[in-house]
Amino acid sequence: MLAEIITIGDEILIGQIVDTNSAWMGVELNKVGVKVKQITSISDEAEHIEQALNDAQKRADIILITGGLGPTKDDVTKTTLSKYFNMPLKIDEVTLTHVKAFFDKLNRPMIEANIKQAEVPDGCTVVMNKNGTAPCMWFEHNDKIIVSMPGVPFEMKYLMSDEIIPRIQKRFKLPFIIHQNILTAGLGESFLAEQIADIEEALPSHIKLAYLPKLGQVRLRLSATGYDETALVTEVTSFTEKIVARIEKFVILTEDLPFEKAIIDFMGKHSLTLSLAESCTGGYISHLFTQHPGASLVFQGGTVTYSNALKQAVLGVGEQTLLNFGAVSEQTASEMALGAVNNFKTDYAIAVTGIAGPDGGSEDKPVGTVWIAVANKRDVKAKLYKFASQRLQNIERAAMAAMMQLFIQLKEDLKAT
Amino acid sequence: MLAEIITIGDEILIGQIVDTNSAWMGVELNKVGVKVKQITSISDEAEHIEQALNDAQKRADIILITGGLGPTKDDVTKTTLSKYFNMPLKIDEVTLTHVKAFFDKLNRPMIEANIKQAEVPDGCTVVMNKNGTAPCMWFEHNDKIIVSMPGVPFEMKYLMSDEIIPRIQKRFKLPFIIHQNILTAGLGESFLAEQIADIEEALPSHIKLAYLPKLGQVRLRLSATGYDETALVTEVTSFTEKIVARIEKFVILTEDLPFEKAIIDFMGKHSLTLSLAESCTGGYISHLFTQHPGASLVFQGGTVTYSNALKQAVLGVGEQTLLNFGAVSEQTASEMALGAVNNFKTDYAIAVTGIAGPDGGSEDKPVGTVWIAVANKRDVKAKLYKFASQRLQNIERAAMAAMMQLFIQLKEDLKAT
Repeated sequence: MLAEIITIGDEILIGQIVDTNSAWMGVELNKVGVKVKQITSISDEAEHIEQALNDAQKRADIILITGGLGPTKDDVTKTTLSKYFNMPLKIDEVTLTHVKAFFDKLNRPMIEANIKQAEVPDGCTVVMNKNGTAPCMWFEHNDKIIVSMPGVPFEMKYLMSDEIIPRIQKRFKLPFIIHQNILTAGLGESFLAEQIADIEEALPSHIKLAYLPKLGQVRLRLSATGYDETALVTEVTSFTEKIVARIEKFVILTEDLPFEKAIIDFMGKHSLTLSLAESCTGGYISHLFTQHPGASLVFQGGTVTYSNALKQAVLGVGEQTLLNFGAVSEQTASEMALGAVNNFKTDYAIAVTGIAGPDGGSEDKPVGTVWIAVANKRDVKAKLYKFASQRLQNIERAAMAAMMQLFIQLKEDLKAT
Repeated sequence: MLAEIITIGDEILIGQIVDTNSAWMGVELNKVGVKVKQITSISDEAEHIEQALNDAQKRADIILITGGLGPTKDDVTKTTLSKYFNMPLKIDEVTLTHVKAFFDKLNRPMIEANIKQAEVPDGCTVVMNKNGTAPCMWFEHNDKIIVSMPGVPFEMKYLMSDEIIPRIQKRFKLPFIIHQNILTAGLGESFLAEQIADIEEALPSHIKLAYLPKLGQVRLRLSATGYDETALVTEVTSFTEKIVARIEKFVILTEDLPFEKAIIDFMGKHSLTLSLAESCTGGYISHLFTQHPGASLVFQGGTVTYSNALKQAVLGVGEQTLLNFGAVSEQTASEMALGAVNNFKTDYAIAVTGIAGPDGGSEDKPVGTVWIAVANKRDVKAKLYKFASQRLQNIERAAMAAMMQLFIQLKEDLKAT
């Protein structure tokens, strides 16, 4: 079963917002065996919307539209759909009651534009949007399903999860798609491919292997499509085992989890706590961990010590250490990590200190120089990394390297005990 | 001048990665007067690539393709372009030398797949990719320009900025597009529209007004297209002034900057320093500030105190305060902010403590309850916010609210002095 996503709105095309909705929809649709054939971002123009709708229906059976449903003039999705399906707009009473209640709750008056939000093309199925005022509309047209949803992420997500996906599942007999990820580090894409060439060659046509390189890691993804879920899982598991056996020392994870979530789960299972002492990553690693519910069981907190004064005051880094070796040094990184373990009373701590750029580099320590230390109550180990010149990329790479260094240390320590 | 972006790769369609490239390209193209008509994400399939290329050329003059240029089997962009333009692949000697040097520098051997990276369709213009091994290819076809670039963000960005955009500018006489943003808070989209309806009505056809709501804010965007840059700026400035005068108390910013960057610039101009005491936002606010070069002039650092123990140890929050009022309270937020100002020796501090969810709520303090305090050396003010049930959304909303609270406080304090 193929679907297409059409996102409507100039704000995506001029780059004012990044389209995160489509990625989320892709993940959720894949879980129920719907493959996204194309994602199309277009402007708020009637003609362009009609053309995109026509093109999408040539390729896919389910067309999911987001955006362009606001109460203001630049939003034309609803009027365009009304014309496209030849269904005049009429007030939907259930939606009107819902919109009225919404404004009552906020204690705000309704204006003409808000009442218009309750209008829908006469003939579509209205799907109640509990999280907002713009109704979701489900059309059936020449055996195709076209759904129009608001672009506000939490409205769209609720509608997809609770309403649209269950309705799609009911309507079609869907094949299963099983994805298996293998996260690797330490070997480039082409070298990995060479190592497992014969395994890849032997994959049946319904199983695809993709290489997704990112920041010093390569994620391998096996995707199997078919109707017998158990058989697919068995097949994919078998190929995964073969690949993992072949490239074992480069494999970090085979669960489909963000790396930081896998670390939290792993440390939680072993009742270990973590704190952070971040300098150049500026809170990014803390943010990665604390995005995930349940992080607080493992992650106790940390500090972002941008200034040297704070490195001394909060982490107890020695003034002499900073004077003799500088803020970006093995010694400072190690003292930061030990300071975090001791002051924040955790089992492990990561410290990161470096030059993210674009300024602040020297001949000795160019932009991209980063020291990362991992400490536990007995020991600390620091490692030097040399990244590139882009600030955000350096922050991301340092975060990834810090998590890898911690993870490897954890595995070593647990093996030793 | 219209352009279209085609991103190639299953990883976007299954949602494994979010397409941030296209948004960045949209911003950069707009700056030189190129409007992105459509962004299309498609799979690594020859037929689909050909079809997308045909469709795009019906609408636009410049087609920018990213992705699908890796050395592995799932990447078919180059062979497809070779067939599409009827240009057989041949080794490009300059690229081969570059790829060899690249591997020499990394001290790694080259394999067959790496040598193939130096192949290009015979007849395209090869644009050197200094940041990677996949060459960038520029095609001219029936008066259209088609460019194929790698999807790795820092390779694509360098190629666009240093090579592709300058070549596009040389090639076409481009109109200017002037964007002016007005960031507002405190008034919903439809109410804003009602307030400025007559101004919007009076806009000439070459100036568009868009409403971009996000997390309690609405960004208004005026976009003017034409060939006389000075006249456009004058016109847009005049309409901006009219709008700002009408809705003055809801306007936060008229610069086209991320909010956090505007705060850094503003505090820097007044030689003020900032520290943070984050609980439920978990380092996210620190990350927002430290993304930007030069943040260290204002932002000294901070702490992420997830546990109560750390709130006491690092920020000096009273044990009795936590016992009597709880971690999520006006008192705790205030003591956290004052603790940060005192311990981290900054002019201002923000403290955020709340329940991000999905767990941890109570009848008294449901998920989404957040206290935010802003302190300076003389005073502290705390405010209660009630957000919703989604963890990531609560983190983002709290960060935005914290920055707004700080910004309003700064403006008040500076007016008073």
